[in-house]
Amino acid sequence: MNTRTESDSIGTLQVPADAYYGVQSLRARQNFPITGQRMHTRFIHSLAQIKKAAALTNLAAGKLDQRRCDAICRACDDVLADRLMDSFIVDPIQGGAGTSANMNANEVIANRAIELLGGTKGDYSVVHPNDHVNMAQSTNDVYPTAGKMTALALLPEVLGELDRLAATLRGKAREYDDVVKMGRTQLQDAVPIRLGQSFGAYASAVERAAARLRRAESELETINMAATAIGTAVNTTRYYREHIVPTLAEVSGLRLTQAEDLIDGTQNIDCFVAVSGALKACAVTLSKMANDLRLLSSGPCTGLGEISLPAKQNGSSIMPGKVNPVIPEVVTQVAFLIAGGDGTITMAAEAGQLELNAFEPVVFFTLFLELDSLREAVRTFTDNCVSGITANRERCRQLVEESVGIVTALCPAIGYQRAASLAKEALKVHQPVRKLAVEEHLLDEKSLEELLDPLSMTTPGD
Amino acid sequence: MNTRTESDSIGTLQVPADAYYGVQSLRARQNFPITGQRMHTRFIHSLAQIKKAAALTNLAAGKLDQRRCDAICRACDDVLADRLMDSFIVDPIQGGAGTSANMNANEVIANRAIELLGGTKGDYSVVHPNDHVNMAQSTNDVYPTAGKMTALALLPEVLGELDRLAATLRGKAREYDDVVKMGRTQLQDAVPIRLGQSFGAYASAVERAAARLRRAESELETINMAATAIGTAVNTTRYYREHIVPTLAEVSGLRLTQAEDLIDGTQNIDCFVAVSGALKACAVTLSKMANDLRLLSSGPCTGLGEISLPAKQNGSSIMPGKVNPVIPEVVTQVAFLIAGGDGTITMAAEAGQLELNAFEPVVFFTLFLELDSLREAVRTFTDNCVSGITANRERCRQLVEESVGIVTALCPAIGYQRAASLAKEALKVHQPVRKLAVEEHLLDEKSLEELLDPLSMTTPGD
Amino acid sequence: MNTRTESDSIGTLQVPADAYYGVQSLRARQNFPITGQRMHTRFIHSLAQIKKAAALTNLAAGKLDQRRCDAICRACDDVLADRLMDSFIVDPIQGGAGTSANMNANEVIANRAIELLGGTKGDYSVVHPNDHVNMAQSTNDVYPTAGKMTALALLPEVLGELDRLAATLRGKAREYDDVVKMGRTQLQDAVPIRLGQSFGAYASAVERAAARLRRAESELETINMAATAIGTAVNTTRYYREHIVPTLAEVSGLRLTQAEDLIDGTQNIDCFVAVSGALKACAVTLSKMANDLRLLSSGPCTGLGEISLPAKQNGSSIMPGKVNPVIPEVVTQVAFLIAGGDGTITMAAEAGQLELNAFEPVVFFTLFLELDSLREAVRTFTDNCVSGITANRERCRQLVEESVGIVTALCPAIGYQRAASLAKEALKVHQPVRKLAVEEHLLDEKSLEELLDPLSMTTPGD
Amino acid sequence: MNTRTESDSIGTLQVPADAYYGVQSLRARQNFPITGQRMHTRFIHSLAQIKKAAALTNLAAGKLDQRRCDAICRACDDVLADRLMDSFIVDPIQGGAGTSANMNANEVIANRAIELLGGTKGDYSVVHPNDHVNMAQSTNDVYPTAGKMTALALLPEVLGELDRLAATLRGKAREYDDVVKMGRTQLQDAVPIRLGQSFGAYASAVERAAARLRRAESELETINMAATAIGTAVNTTRYYREHIVPTLAEVSGLRLTQAEDLIDGTQNIDCFVAVSGALKACAVTLSKMANDLRLLSSGPCTGLGEISLPAKQNGSSIMPGKVNPVIPEVVTQVAFLIAGGDGTITMAAEAGQLELNAFEPVVFFTLFLELDSLREAVRTFTDNCVSGITANRERCRQLVEESVGIVTALCPAIGYQRAASLAKEALKVHQPVRKLAVEEHLLDEKSLEELLDPLSMTTPGD
Repeated sequence: MNTRTESDSIGTLQVPADAYYGVQSLRARQNFPITGQRMHTRFIHSLAQIKKAAALTNLAAGKLDQRRCDAICRACDDVLADRLMDSFIVDPIQGGAGTSANMNANEVIANRAIELLGGTKGDYSVVHPNDHVNMAQSTNDVYPTAGKMTALALLPEVLGELDRLAATLRGKAREYDDVVKMGRTQLQDAVPIRLGQSFGAYASAVERAAARLRRAESELETINMAATAIGTAVNTTRYYREHIVPTLAEVSGLRLTQAEDLIDGTQNIDCFVAVSGALKACAVTLSKMANDLRLLSSGPCTGLGEISLPAKQNGSSIMPGKVNPVIPEVVTQVAFLIAGGDGTITMAAEAGQLELNAFEPVVFFTLFLELDSLREAVRTFTDNCVSGITANRERCRQLVEESVGIVTALCPAIGYQRAASLAKEALKVHQPVRKLAVEEHLLDEKSLEELLDPLSMTTPGD
Repeated sequence: MNTRTESDSIGTLQVPADAYYGVQSLRARQNFPITGQRMHTRFIHSLAQIKKAAALTNLAAGKLDQRRCDAICRACDDVLADRLMDSFIVDPIQGGAGTSANMNANEVIANRAIELLGGTKGDYSVVHPNDHVNMAQSTNDVYPTAGKMTALALLPEVLGELDRLAATLRGKAREYDDVVKMGRTQLQDAVPIRLGQSFGAYASAVERAAARLRRAESELETINMAATAIGTAVNTTRYYREHIVPTLAEVSGLRLTQAEDLIDGTQNIDCFVAVSGALKACAVTLSKMANDLRLLSSGPCTGLGEISLPAKQNGSSIMPGKVNPVIPEVVTQVAFLIAGGDGTITMAAEAGQLELNAFEPVVFFTLFLELDSLREAVRTFTDNCVSGITANRERCRQLVEESVGIVTALCPAIGYQRAASLAKEALKVHQPVRKLAVEEHLLDEKSLEELLDPLSMTTPGD
Repeated sequence: MNTRTESDSIGTLQVPADAYYGVQSLRARQNFPITGQRMHTRFIHSLAQIKKAAALTNLAAGKLDQRRCDAICRACDDVLADRLMDSFIVDPIQGGAGTSANMNANEVIANRAIELLGGTKGDYSVVHPNDHVNMAQSTNDVYPTAGKMTALALLPEVLGELDRLAATLRGKAREYDDVVKMGRTQLQDAVPIRLGQSFGAYASAVERAAARLRRAESELETINMAATAIGTAVNTTRYYREHIVPTLAEVSGLRLTQAEDLIDGTQNIDCFVAVSGALKACAVTLSKMANDLRLLSSGPCTGLGEISLPAKQNGSSIMPGKVNPVIPEVVTQVAFLIAGGDGTITMAAEAGQLELNAFEPVVFFTLFLELDSLREAVRTFTDNCVSGITANRERCRQLVEESVGIVTALCPAIGYQRAASLAKEALKVHQPVRKLAVEEHLLDEKSLEELLDPLSMTTPGD
Repeated sequence: MNTRTESDSIGTLQVPADAYYGVQSLRARQNFPITGQRMHTRFIHSLAQIKKAAALTNLAAGKLDQRRCDAICRACDDVLADRLMDSFIVDPIQGGAGTSANMNANEVIANRAIELLGGTKGDYSVVHPNDHVNMAQSTNDVYPTAGKMTALALLPEVLGELDRLAATLRGKAREYDDVVKMGRTQLQDAVPIRLGQSFGAYASAVERAAARLRRAESELETINMAATAIGTAVNTTRYYREHIVPTLAEVSGLRLTQAEDLIDGTQNIDCFVAVSGALKACAVTLSKMANDLRLLSSGPCTGLGEISLPAKQNGSSIMPGKVNPVIPEVVTQVAFLIAGGDGTITMAAEAGQLELNAFEPVVFFTLFLELDSLREAVRTFTDNCVSGITANRERCRQLVEESVGIVTALCPAIGYQRAASLAKEALKVHQPVRKLAVEEHLLDEKSLEELLDPLSMTTPGD
């Protein structure tokens, strides 16, 4: 393999001659062979957008010449067009607070810019990774900003899927609004509910989860570009400080604002804990709903069987004909992934020291995995499960009739204690509550008919 | 011991004759001897406020007579005045989704009302725990509502302490705004910062944590009163449904609104996950700051020693003269308590099934412990630590002078690579960067003086 | 209030004249008003046992005179007899790595010893908290040792309850060994199982959990007494180092061994993470079982209803006759408490720095709460739930008959695909699998009878 | 694209004609596009080993003919030689309790076997995925067994790296056994320690972590092969039940034993919680050590600077000459990953229901990521950090001299209180403790010399 010699503060290293990455990327690759995975594509895009915005701002500030700026911008566009993906070689989980990721971008963009300018890769006098591509930047503002931008880029798709799920649930709520079934608390028969109400409640919960995520989104829009090393903005110009964020907003199409306190904005990453918390609340809501769907569709013969989930695949390698609630199961697993990830993010955020939090790489690795998995889980939940749910009307009706929970409606008329005795008796002799109430002359038949009507028990009267 | 006989669906039980609690409280006490602790005082108050508001609303709705209503309200006032605390005997961690807590309140208030009306305790024909005290209610709306009210009652004190901490930090930021010290990233010398900037950043982070908690507070204001058993509002009147929440808001002095979707509001408790997430983000911020203060005050002879924390107690039982950062240490421990508690709350919220989440008791136990501990931790942090911090100006100055980190400011002028060589050389020969730069004629002395001025490096120029 | 003046390195403070505690306890009380709770009784006992063992060892080493030793030992005995409990005034969650707890013990024992010797409280020339009571000790060996001893004292009761639970489950396994019921995987009908097998599996899991805890117990038996401040055993004599642990083992009745590497034994507290992990595995097993019991007893009319849990209390304040699975619900909540506590313990253990982990107080607070709650939860689980479970034989039989899951047994004879078609058909036309198989001449009747016998499907043949 | 038509209980689907996978794999791929990742290579190997062992056992049991057995075994060998990796198309996070993973293996092996026998892919009359490849198996024994085998295959490499780390630390302990430095507790100066003792303590902790993992390993060796669907061993022969585990042990080279209670072994997965707990304890130990190394090497000018870590890469994109502790930083991040993953595994294990835990896929995804990351993190920790650590002897010596912590050694001679005053005075007037002690005639010079010798304070005397 042809190589070129590159050097850094540590010494020299042979780099493949045609590589866009340089010595620092290569050292990082050797230092951090942790997951064997690549950095998230969107994260690499975010880095490129930052480098482009910085070049444009430095040009306008009179600090970068037009020729280098153009070359850097074209190189960034190549990254954004996924043409240089193989050159991003550092592991997403890395030490150094993201310096390796940032330098990987700086080196790739510098070498591509050098190439575009007719230079030889590695001849950093043409375009220098630090002096030109990283001009007026530090890993300590670039890396957290890229992380936030990535999350901001991923969140809308998650939110879109949540909205679609909520809409699908609302549709089911309308479709099955007339199906009266038994409500259960603590897995014990309670009072009647309409299936439509159940789906409506799921929709409400998903909508609330989405709204909460949208509020949390704003936590990510505050970035610390121009903070450079520790928030004191060392090595930046006034022009740059004032224009880098709006320029980056334009380049990226994201809503971004500059942190008022750049020192704080560089050392504290509680925003990711907050976002992770909102994601976890969403995960909890989805998992609870998924668990309910599994319960309600349990059977086919020995379970609750009030609804049927669409059959999506053979359920068993040994039990013929078995169909399992595979989609809700995967949703719950993603919820567990997110809940665990929240622990990782919390510990990493707590571990920040003085002017920086060096543990952002594992935060981003975790957060992006969560966002990707959540988006896909919600998508398959909507398309392969919720949209195809059907109600087993007859089964629902029959269970309501068999139940004694409707006795609750008699309390205002006959008191809790007599109602309790009635319920106990009904269970013991396997007779309908209404029949016993009539026999015991507790109320006249018409009142009983009205009070014990399951449908009316699902909608409060006057 | 004199006893009276009480009965429930399970059978009969001897209750101490003079006890305000009844058979259901007693059974619960036997069933759940889990923590040996009492329910939170504020939670008991919240239950009493609900019972009072319900009685007043039921009176206005024409469902409860004036005499019983008055007696119930007076009994509730007794609870609120802490006169019946010994009668609340059920453990905070209980099965039954809080039914025991609710019945404990119903029984105590009923028996106290009976007593006020001249009846005999246990003669529930006078005032019935279920039919009168619990009228138009269910544990499933009362218990979660009481939990939210308690958190809403505890949060302002937490927020008050956070505000006071932020203000104290702002004061320190002003007091030490002129102290230039070395900034450190990844525990390695970076570039200068002013101590005032550090404290300002802490203040900013605490203010953000408080603002986030205030936003989360609104999650708790949405209650499900009138939902009764499962959200269908069975056994309520229209008047009650429309007036119970405003009445409760008035009785309690809290801002409360009724959930639009009462089914959702009864079965989903993601709001606690959201609040816990905001608390955890706050805890993370506090712990990071506490850790920083321990680092910066490390010493007295072999540490960083840039600041001194007020000495609050002997540090050691064996090492004389040792003074330890005991207050930051307890703050961090409370942060760990909160982070762990978040796991408990998450699992409990996820475990809800169908029309109810039966695991709220452990959520409340955890949440209230967190809120109480956080309030006290922040209070002692402010009063016994932050307010008494002093800067070791001379030490800060000296460390800046010894450091080579200021070389960063030369990058725009001489480029990253030459600056790196200079830094390496300075470290090797133990000479100041400025001296070497002059010797090597990298820049003229005046430029060097300007560029390498530590103070100016803390405030970006043009 | 009469007071006496005491002084420490911080200054002087007025202490109630008759208080056994002294200035350091009082300062700690003011510094750490975190939970408002007292330290665990067993923990205070453990401290007293350590002080007694140290006094005896120092006497034998010729470092402590007989008179002081006797007085200290008598004072320790008073603590062990719970006669001085009110004098332990510091909060369990405290900064200072437990110094306040240790000094609280040193002061109380010193003042009680002074009193016993006819001196005046606070006259530490008679018996000095540090020089005599704490002789050859440091908080840094005393406090973690006391924590381990407390856990070792609490664990046998937990294990006893787990053993009792396992035995009760084994009893149920025998009692219901002949009840054939449907097995379910993923909440869908699978193949038959005997209820006895289910209970046997629960017993196996509980036995494994207990065995794992017993193995973890040994982690706690390794203590660092004689390490003093950092593990270098400064201020100890050879005699003391060699005899303190066996003496403490004798005084306490616990199996204790001295850490081989006292430096390691003083700074690392991973043993608590290991113990917490074993507790969490146990909690997970218990919660899974509790959830199963809730599922299997769901009903009474619209659930699975294969077993009945003993009714322990009214289930609802609004729904008469409702009986809920309150005991399994509290077991699961304790499991969530333990799982969350594991997060707290993990973060605290990770946060140790250099020669000490200063965050043990929150570890102990959490661990003791977990052990106490677990013991009580298992006790009530056994006594108030498992021991009274009954099988609904008829219901079990009926569900097996209705199910098509038994078709699995035909696979070896007719192949997976034909069996799958048969199952599908059976579900569609609501006919028994056997009947259809006969009609379709898939197998002769005798073979079908044998293959499809539910009981034989629960015990593998040849 | 040429396709073939395959069918299952859901219907028909077009499968690429040359694909080894079949309809069920394809459906799963569409149902679960969660992470976009492939299943772990070792996991696929484990599945192949199981299929091979089952075929051999079924052959010996007289249930599978020699021709099919041979073809299946050769197909398994192809999988083990990584020749069919692209055919494993299902996502590691999947619903269905692993059925899709199992069927992916069944289909690939069947079609490869068919090919080897000269048949046409998809013609399952030649070799059937369920009837032949999956013979006497169920996903419910195959999948968890494969997960355990994978972990067992990955653990030795992790343990090997831990052993190597411990040995390297022991080497450092010897190398720097004579370097006396200040010990610190709570980040405050304590008493002297030798650097060798510090490294020895790290070694002890790592050795304990490895020993704990080795004990946990045995949890994984107990597998439930022959349990089939729910542990009742339906559709197995006695011969198979008795021989499948030893055969699998031989095929795989792993130590494996059959669960005594197969019902328990199929439904409970607490073993993974236990293993995860042991991993977490290891992670905590590593992170604590990594944090210490970062602290001790902090500087170069304004930190503790007692040791130097080998420089592995440029530390900053903006600050020239900066070298950061990047390797310890990545170790700590992997620790956070593992701690978070433990939460995921715990929730998944707790969520098992009745005869199965359907959430194993996310357990395995998490566990394998943890094991891989831990192995790599420890490897880079040893090779790129620990092995190259150097002591800064002069700095260590100087800090000890400046410190007053040595005053502790005077306590036995002059008492705690006088020693405390001396320490306070020494700090105030910036004079060595020894000088002041001489001046104040507290002890004679010779005694002082002996008592205050830092080296002797690190090794306890008589």
